[in-house]
Amino acid sequence: MPDLEFLFHPRSIAIVGAPSDPANLAGGSVFVHALLESGYKGGIYPVNPRACQIMGLDCYPDVGSVPGPVDHVICCIPASGVPRLIGECSAKGVRSMSMFTAGYSEADGHDYETERRLALLAREAGIRLLGPNCMGIHCPSTGLSYQPGHSQEAGPVGVLCQSGGNSNVLKFMGDDRGIRFSKVISYGNAADINEADLLEYFAGDPDTRVIAAYIEGTRSGPRFFKALAGAAAAKPVIVLKAGLTEAGQRAARSHTGSLGSPADIWNGLCRQAGAMQAHSLDHMLDLVETALYMKPPPGTRAGIIGWGGGASVLGTDTCERLGLSVPQFSLRLKEELAGFRLAPGASVGNPVDSPVITMPSQLVNAMSVIAGSGEVDLLLVQMPLDVSHALQRPSVWEATGEAVLQGQERLGGVPLAIVRPHTAHPDSMAHFNAFRQRCAAAGVPLYPAFSQAASAISAFAWYHRWRTGRLFPT
Amino acid sequence: MPDLEFLFHPRSIAIVGAPSDPANLAGGSVFVHALLESGYKGGIYPVNPRACQIMGLDCYPDVGSVPGPVDHVICCIPASGVPRLIGECSAKGVRSMSMFTAGYSEADGHDYETERRLALLAREAGIRLLGPNCMGIHCPSTGLSYQPGHSQEAGPVGVLCQSGGNSNVLKFMGDDRGIRFSKVISYGNAADINEADLLEYFAGDPDTRVIAAYIEGTRSGPRFFKALAGAAAAKPVIVLKAGLTEAGQRAARSHTGSLGSPADIWNGLCRQAGAMQAHSLDHMLDLVETALYMKPPPGTRAGIIGWGGGASVLGTDTCERLGLSVPQFSLRLKEELAGFRLAPGASVGNPVDSPVITMPSQLVNAMSVIAGSGEVDLLLVQMPLDVSHALQRPSVWEATGEAVLQGQERLGGVPLAIVRPHTAHPDSMAHFNAFRQRCAAAGVPLYPAFSQAASAISAFAWYHRWRTGRLFPT
Repeated sequence: MPDLEFLFHPRSIAIVGAPSDPANLAGGSVFVHALLESGYKGGIYPVNPRACQIMGLDCYPDVGSVPGPVDHVICCIPASGVPRLIGECSAKGVRSMSMFTAGYSEADGHDYETERRLALLAREAGIRLLGPNCMGIHCPSTGLSYQPGHSQEAGPVGVLCQSGGNSNVLKFMGDDRGIRFSKVISYGNAADINEADLLEYFAGDPDTRVIAAYIEGTRSGPRFFKALAGAAAAKPVIVLKAGLTEAGQRAARSHTGSLGSPADIWNGLCRQAGAMQAHSLDHMLDLVETALYMKPPPGTRAGIIGWGGGASVLGTDTCERLGLSVPQFSLRLKEELAGFRLAPGASVGNPVDSPVITMPSQLVNAMSVIAGSGEVDLLLVQMPLDVSHALQRPSVWEATGEAVLQGQERLGGVPLAIVRPHTAHPDSMAHFNAFRQRCAAAGVPLYPAFSQAASAISAFAWYHRWRTGRLFPT
Repeated sequence: MPDLEFLFHPRSIAIVGAPSDPANLAGGSVFVHALLESGYKGGIYPVNPRACQIMGLDCYPDVGSVPGPVDHVICCIPASGVPRLIGECSAKGVRSMSMFTAGYSEADGHDYETERRLALLAREAGIRLLGPNCMGIHCPSTGLSYQPGHSQEAGPVGVLCQSGGNSNVLKFMGDDRGIRFSKVISYGNAADINEADLLEYFAGDPDTRVIAAYIEGTRSGPRFFKALAGAAAAKPVIVLKAGLTEAGQRAARSHTGSLGSPADIWNGLCRQAGAMQAHSLDHMLDLVETALYMKPPPGTRAGIIGWGGGASVLGTDTCERLGLSVPQFSLRLKEELAGFRLAPGASVGNPVDSPVITMPSQLVNAMSVIAGSGEVDLLLVQMPLDVSHALQRPSVWEATGEAVLQGQERLGGVPLAIVRPHTAHPDSMAHFNAFRQRCAAAGVPLYPAFSQAASAISAFAWYHRWRTGRLFPT
């Protein structure tokens, strides 16, 4: 079992510095609130010498006064009191501490020395540290959380995130996309437990199938590279590096004390290590969904079935621009497709301009013939824009979506992905979400736009080539 | 008045080839349906020798049998019957014809010659042609439409679109974003009326403030360049060129018979002509909203107020990557901002890491000080992710949004834009839409992501420099 596993199984937790006013979410009460909501089964002990009860829980003047063992501490007191607290925790047998407390290397003056001494002190006390300047641990399977409002269902995605705020955005956005998490760890300034430790943990974690990492900086390049490459060899890893521009580096230093890396060095490192790179949290979630649901494509040749002529042209341009190729079909294949009489004047040369009015069965026949041709590595099928709200009738195309999903069986293992655009209307969004659930269950990734599909799928195809040793053959 | 104005004021319309089965939307009945729904006040005359009534309207065996004048004809019959129809229309005094009929230069064999003869025949008959292979004219102010379900409210955006399907996607997506259109013209293969004619029309159209053009190809480079540059000198023009990749060009040729242009030639042409380029329909709408609502920024120096540390770092990277700069603030300005005590440890150096818990008034004070410094050309302010549905309470941040909008008055004319992310939850989307309406009314563009904001604003700032003669001084 990876050596950080104990972090996710504390028998009890003390929140030190929880304010007595529960509306004051800036302090520790957000942690009390989150733990109560997420169904944590162990003891929850607010520690505050100036309060008797917090959110209905008894409050203790110090860690030593808590009855029974305390395995984990969430530290929310000012930095000046931390050395003394570590002493108290050591005496109590605390094994890990998550430090919400900030004011170290990220603050004006960038005090790396105090942060280094803090890590040493904790190590001598036998305590592993997360942070400082972090939110800590979210682990639905054992009821750990640091933010109310999240899904408490566990899933296959493990996240390490140097920014607590971004970890919350990622979880909320993921929740509403139907993505579920094994663990999300906000690790802040990384004085002790760092990105390399967490990558190693997730690489060996049987509950994690895909790893997503938001990183502002790393203090040991070689160790990080080794951990990243090891994790990518075990499962898909998506990295979002913040601070790749000069202004972004300046911001990262003020946020987590992180020192930047030149973009080209970082990009080269990720390519060598087999990590897929994201450029935003949304893009990261696109990559996560692709890695979760898509069959690995052996190459980047896409067969495109677009919904109408103009959509096909744009989809083709977008795919070619973002790393997929759209090869012209052979004469033989075009003739076979033309036999389906998809629609008068419909193009069949790749892209295939899908029939606007036709039987779903014809569409599935076309998919099957293209997949069987050996001329493509994957199929990208577009559904029509969902405007059933505007037309005031249920979309006549839902049946097509179901047929396409069921048609997957006739593709002989060729990976399938679906593009289904929606508008900003909440109903259009809701229908998209419902279809996304169906697609996830069927093991097919769904995207609202060709740009998102092409960007994610080309990265995933690249990863598959890396992992199977076809990028850097030895 | 531009010489195509008569297209939008027909006294009556004949739909030739409307099938008797109204469920057959592939044929002309979609046009009858759309005109009935959009409140067109003139005569609507289905023409079909094999039907008596279509959707409750009397049907005529030929155009000559229609009582009274026919100004406009929508042609839905097979290509073989078109020359004879043009003769009939000429005798009836028809002034314009929109040809849904396809099977010309876009079809297998790419018959440019027949298409050329068609255009000559129409010209000799005194009839202006749209198409072939097009949907025609959408003009809410006179009740013209070719697709049911669209908003019938008129607005300031004029669209020329070589793809009928893409024109519908653009309208539906625009409708749900709150964008309203003056005219949307689907012009297909452009045998007679072409992209240059339409750009000239929109340049002089007083109902159109922003022009959006989806173009697959142009057959006369010099004429097109002149029309594009002339239109951009009059108002913002956004161009989405399809077929910029080799595979995309192949697809465009099968769709509208368009011949491609190498991407670098096309890009250079647009830069010279002052057109903003979009790479997708969504991106096009981002650019449209920016051009509609944003005050022109004199340059690309952005002052960023991000919602939290990690979000600020990512937003800064994204802005720098997509054409805005995020200059470090002067010591004087940083000191002034630090005086607001935005939040403990919050960065003030640009980006400003906005307070998570603070008074909206402090945020507005910070905005005002940054705008007054002369150190930025525009302000980008981020709102928190809307997860009020997950927290089961109304967002505590709505007040902040209102304060920011009202704070616009204290910016001394420095342009403001807002980034407000939402999740895939329909409620989050609905709140975003509601705030977008407020922003549009206040003349402030709103984006769900920094990437969309930066990409659109940097293009708009570029356009403003082009238009004021600062890009290519003579």
